[in-house]
Amino acid sequence: MGDKRLKVRATATVANVSCGFDCIGYSIGSPADILTLEIQDKPGLELTISGEKSGTIPLEAEDNTAGKAILSLLNSLDRDTGFRIHIEKGIPPGSGLGSSAASAVAGVVGVNELLGNPMEEDELLVHCMAGETASAPTEHADNVAPSLLGGIVLIRSYEPLEVLKLNVPDNLYSTVVLPDYSVNTRDARNILPKTVPLKSAITQSGNLAGFILGLENEDFDLLGRSMVDLFAEPVRKKLIPGFESVRQAALDSGAIGCGISGSGPTLFALSSSEEDASKIGKSMVEAFLKKGLKSRAYSSLINNQPAKILD
Amino acid sequence: MGDKRLKVRATATVANVSCGFDCIGYSIGSPADILTLEIQDKPGLELTISGEKSGTIPLEAEDNTAGKAILSLLNSLDRDTGFRIHIEKGIPPGSGLGSSAASAVAGVVGVNELLGNPMEEDELLVHCMAGETASAPTEHADNVAPSLLGGIVLIRSYEPLEVLKLNVPDNLYSTVVLPDYSVNTRDARNILPKTVPLKSAITQSGNLAGFILGLENEDFDLLGRSMVDLFAEPVRKKLIPGFESVRQAALDSGAIGCGISGSGPTLFALSSSEEDASKIGKSMVEAFLKKGLKSRAYSSLINNQPAKILD
Repeated sequence: MGDKRLKVRATATVANVSCGFDCIGYSIGSPADILTLEIQDKPGLELTISGEKSGTIPLEAEDNTAGKAILSLLNSLDRDTGFRIHIEKGIPPGSGLGSSAASAVAGVVGVNELLGNPMEEDELLVHCMAGETASAPTEHADNVAPSLLGGIVLIRSYEPLEVLKLNVPDNLYSTVVLPDYSVNTRDARNILPKTVPLKSAITQSGNLAGFILGLENEDFDLLGRSMVDLFAEPVRKKLIPGFESVRQAALDSGAIGCGISGSGPTLFALSSSEEDASKIGKSMVEAFLKKGLKSRAYSSLINNQPAKILD
Repeated sequence: MGDKRLKVRATATVANVSCGFDCIGYSIGSPADILTLEIQDKPGLELTISGEKSGTIPLEAEDNTAGKAILSLLNSLDRDTGFRIHIEKGIPPGSGLGSSAASAVAGVVGVNELLGNPMEEDELLVHCMAGETASAPTEHADNVAPSLLGGIVLIRSYEPLEVLKLNVPDNLYSTVVLPDYSVNTRDARNILPKTVPLKSAITQSGNLAGFILGLENEDFDLLGRSMVDLFAEPVRKKLIPGFESVRQAALDSGAIGCGISGSGPTLFALSSSEEDASKIGKSMVEAFLKKGLKSRAYSSLINNQPAKILD
């Protein structure tokens, strides 16, 4: 068994990445959630929370994504160790940046460490996914997997679950811009079509294939041409005021591609230099402002590191 | 202007390749069509034909895939040179092995050569596609592109057309087995669903992404896990007697994956050695025979060479 108290940092993530709807996600440098975990003498989880918009997050273990993820892990290990956990939300909930995923990941990684690492990193994934069901109707891996493992991941298959890390070019930068606006995740999911034209499915497949090749060959033009979403963006963009003009601002400032992060309202853009990433952020914020929305930008390299135990 | 008479060989191709419906195609060593082309003094195309099942193929230039492809090329070059063309069919029409595509490719490559190569190889693709419309309702590139360029190709996009050559592992072998059975290409297309569940589209996308990664990383296990088709195979397999048992025979004999070649009735299998490729062919032929169908097998490395001018 390791130390009895530790902090874990799990970062925000961008899921879907246009052509990779429900298949692709990547990890960014910040924002992040930081969980402080400590073993307590009695069984059960005692949760406290602080940080932005954290007042809406339930603290009953079963209803909290970190709590539910940890219970899933403990259950599978057949352990009844109890923990005191403080969640410091750096990622606003409902932003489309994998806020609940990051809390679940940090919780599971922390508890595994405190118990002496009975599980390998990749075995933790299913418990992170189980945690996410506290706030989502179905299990997804496109936020928890990149937050847990770092980098850019492909969910090749859900049945059985197969997650593959993709090549991360050294100079691939991400910008995310969070407008001060709410999109209900459930609405964003309910608005999705249940079926799609076969032709669209073929086009989307071809684009995801091009995206994978673009990453493997570090061909950013190909990456950009492939970043088209025919499934979610056509309907979800209507939920985000100014989507078209903010996206255009990103492309005009040199973005490789730009789209909706997860179910929104955050928009993400990829670029090939720190300078571009920062410039893109500024023009996206300006474009949102023209539509009357305040927003803030985070730029960083794609974060190729797994969720991190601090000190 | 080059010689006034030449022969061109264009090979059969396997389109779709399970998870790559309308996106992926590869070229095989044989069978192939061989066209003999000669400039004639008067304008127009004079077509003759020989070879298996060639009696059903129309010889009016506009109705013949090679003829229509050549007319498209000549038209775009604004030339009215006339040609005598003999088509020697090595690829039976209606087999699902890109028979019409091969004739179109050989015709276009031959005429371009006889005219002194006014066009680059990749510029020829649209004319090959135009030729295919003589026998198909819509333009496709997943047979003509690999027959023209060789190797394994991804049609990333149709609008605009973008074709990408994929990595071809040195030891990737193909087996195709042609049963003595007819499937009407039009029926095989009409039976396709017009829409697919979003969930299936996501699964297919993930599998195509896995297939691309499997080729790039030469990971044949990943390639095999990814070779699942949710779009065409579930409906088209009903048109092919014995499909399930022939496919199972291929997998039992060491195939990486096995599926329907194009719109069938030919089945293809991938494998990692010449020995396996041949063994797989034998067991597939046996399995068809148990269902009362004669068939023949062709095994070869993936053909990584473009359509070839002979002598």
